[in-house]
Amino acid sequence: MSAASPTPTSLRVALLGGGTVGTEVVRLLTADSSDFSARVGVPIQLSAVAVRDLSKPRPGIPSSLLTDDALAVATSGADIVVEVMGGIEPARSLILAAMAAGSSVVTANKALLAEDGASLYEAARKFGVDLYFEAAVAGAIPLIRPLRESLAGDQVSKVMGIVNGTTNFMLTRMDEDGADYAEVFDEANALGYLESDPTLDVGGHDAAAKAAIIAELAFHTRVTIDDVYCEGITQVTSTDIKAAQDMGFVIKLLAVAERTDAGVIVRVHPAMVPRDHPLASVRLSFNAVFIEAESAGQMMFYGRGAGGAPTASAVLGDLVAAARNRLSGGQGPGESTYLDLPVLGIGEAQTRYYVNLDVADKPGVLASIASAFAENGVSIQVVRQDGHGDEAGLIVRTHKASDQSLRQTIDALSKLDTVRRVLGVMRVEGEPGA
Amino acid sequence: MSAASPTPTSLRVALLGGGTVGTEVVRLLTADSSDFSARVGVPIQLSAVAVRDLSKPRPGIPSSLLTDDALAVATSGADIVVEVMGGIEPARSLILAAMAAGSSVVTANKALLAEDGASLYEAARKFGVDLYFEAAVAGAIPLIRPLRESLAGDQVSKVMGIVNGTTNFMLTRMDEDGADYAEVFDEANALGYLESDPTLDVGGHDAAAKAAIIAELAFHTRVTIDDVYCEGITQVTSTDIKAAQDMGFVIKLLAVAERTDAGVIVRVHPAMVPRDHPLASVRLSFNAVFIEAESAGQMMFYGRGAGGAPTASAVLGDLVAAARNRLSGGQGPGESTYLDLPVLGIGEAQTRYYVNLDVADKPGVLASIASAFAENGVSIQVVRQDGHGDEAGLIVRTHKASDQSLRQTIDALSKLDTVRRVLGVMRVEGEPGA
Repeated sequence: MSAASPTPTSLRVALLGGGTVGTEVVRLLTADSSDFSARVGVPIQLSAVAVRDLSKPRPGIPSSLLTDDALAVATSGADIVVEVMGGIEPARSLILAAMAAGSSVVTANKALLAEDGASLYEAARKFGVDLYFEAAVAGAIPLIRPLRESLAGDQVSKVMGIVNGTTNFMLTRMDEDGADYAEVFDEANALGYLESDPTLDVGGHDAAAKAAIIAELAFHTRVTIDDVYCEGITQVTSTDIKAAQDMGFVIKLLAVAERTDAGVIVRVHPAMVPRDHPLASVRLSFNAVFIEAESAGQMMFYGRGAGGAPTASAVLGDLVAAARNRLSGGQGPGESTYLDLPVLGIGEAQTRYYVNLDVADKPGVLASIASAFAENGVSIQVVRQDGHGDEAGLIVRTHKASDQSLRQTIDALSKLDTVRRVLGVMRVEGEPGA
Repeated sequence: MSAASPTPTSLRVALLGGGTVGTEVVRLLTADSSDFSARVGVPIQLSAVAVRDLSKPRPGIPSSLLTDDALAVATSGADIVVEVMGGIEPARSLILAAMAAGSSVVTANKALLAEDGASLYEAARKFGVDLYFEAAVAGAIPLIRPLRESLAGDQVSKVMGIVNGTTNFMLTRMDEDGADYAEVFDEANALGYLESDPTLDVGGHDAAAKAAIIAELAFHTRVTIDDVYCEGITQVTSTDIKAAQDMGFVIKLLAVAERTDAGVIVRVHPAMVPRDHPLASVRLSFNAVFIEAESAGQMMFYGRGAGGAPTASAVLGDLVAAARNRLSGGQGPGESTYLDLPVLGIGEAQTRYYVNLDVADKPGVLASIASAFAENGVSIQVVRQDGHGDEAGLIVRTHKASDQSLRQTIDALSKLDTVRRVLGVMRVEGEPGA
């Protein structure tokens, strides 16, 4: 089969956004232009770079390419429009306008995809153009392409990701150096790791946007950020870190997307992971995504999840794919929501839990606590009793239980006179040894 | 752009090979046929399965599909021909015949790709069909697609892979359980892990074929298995394992493809890897590939590298990609050898080394040994002296040195009367902490 239109002799690329990622994209496209020509088949020409503030110096971007008329750039009929400005608006309108003008779109915009990916897919379908977004999740780590293409012949059952480098850096420092939350927050801030609104990182919202994108691709079901249960790391204490260590676990902020018999559950929360699980060794600002699929089994992808250069690498890989499609007359994968599974709330999630209790050192303590678990249908896997006298602590790890059963258990425990305080409650993920 | 031909309303797939992988492909295509239809856009019909021996029972493959006329299946004009029979011939002739008949090809044939990938690419180009081969390297782990597509906008500098599960299983058992080579060979044999010709595994030839395929994609330069230096694990001793442990290293059979200023070097050999390197934690029969790229930085892909189900998962992902191209009129990536870098011999490789010496316990030993290294231009990084009297051992870890310099050093050491025996020599890979 051959394309009806004549094969273009060069391709035009227009860029929306001239920040860190945009500048790196320009640099690489310019520095390695003969490589790109060879890899695509024809020369790639950068036609324009739209920025908000023309007066700001943009070292590395030729001034002749700069303009503040983003709509004109978006609708210039470029073969490919690259959107690296971020945010919902005007990014959405510009992408839709670019597609209407016949341009394929490469975007790194996780917030927009997680909120309204459906509009972008719909426009791509309507206008017969490509929508690529590898850079939106886990930076340079190829994850979107494997989910959309490599695993297109498999059934994914669960995805667990460390997809926010800032919080992983903070948790690593707490784990390895005994720093407390306030200290590592300040450190991350000083290093420039935190978003201008830090709650996007520490509140888990950045991870939640990525979780929604991952879940939609993994389960062929529309998922938006509103479907994602989101709990950040602000409540993680040194006590939790220490308890995790004592049990052979490490605390990670996980983005989890899983398929159960009843539907799809997508959640972001801190979790205890066994030290011998592949995700446990993902340190500092690295990202990793662990996938379980029916035929492929367990897989993990690991690498740099953020930063100008890694993000630009992902953008340029997409750009080459979109360019090759232009030349061959083909089209990349579109939206796949055919399974249309129910998206369930966190109440339906079944996970294991860790519960850390400050207890009175008197006879019958364990019996009363065990009853509280049993009466609420939560089965205990391991109990560990530390110290004695005024220092008595009891750590319980449960078998799988529902969110609701666990909450009821915690309520019941709080009312026991043998329990002085509930010191910590956290989900446990990853089978030991897996 | 739209395809000139009318969009097909269904796609025909023909299979060459009815072994473990072929049977699993049939099972999945049949069991999940509505999923495939939804993901591709039209129904996929399995038209025939060619096998060598029709009299052999093939549970799971409908007998109406079976035939021993492989050429008829290859040239039946199916939209996609899947080749999972393996070996050079008749696989090559059948694939070329299928392409000439207008079929896209999905193959898991690492031996053929490593020996004569060029012929397959050439035919794919000539007849305007796709050639996909994700299953040929690292089974279910998406690696080929990331190299061909995701990293198409980046410059890969080095790839290091654990790509043979059998030898990784053997080395893991030697490391963790103190078993010696003969024991773990027997164990791997009893578990059915070894190829019918075990030298393919333990001699490193299976890994070498995969290394050639990886290197060609990573460096846009034609590489065949004849270009790959290949050393297996048969010489790895318990002494090496123990020495590695004492230094905080673990021994892995690595497939290394690297780009130097002078060209490309591709090699397979056992190497000591620091325990905190991501590859060190890849245990038992798991595979992993570690990639360093200019913009993306360090990445690792981890998962099941072999087995019927994981291999079938990779085949089916390719099948969906080829099918989508059929429908959209597009074409997947072709051969990319535009860089055409010189492919260098092992003599040009610069690596660090471990050298384990049984030495006489007399004054001046270290001085004479240090001189032998220095005179041959090999710089010492660490020396570690163990025991004394008749048990004296000396372990040296070098800075980067050429293969030739190291060989000359070992020659010189062997001639020293202070050196009783060279107990072990092995390359060291992976920067500590990386």
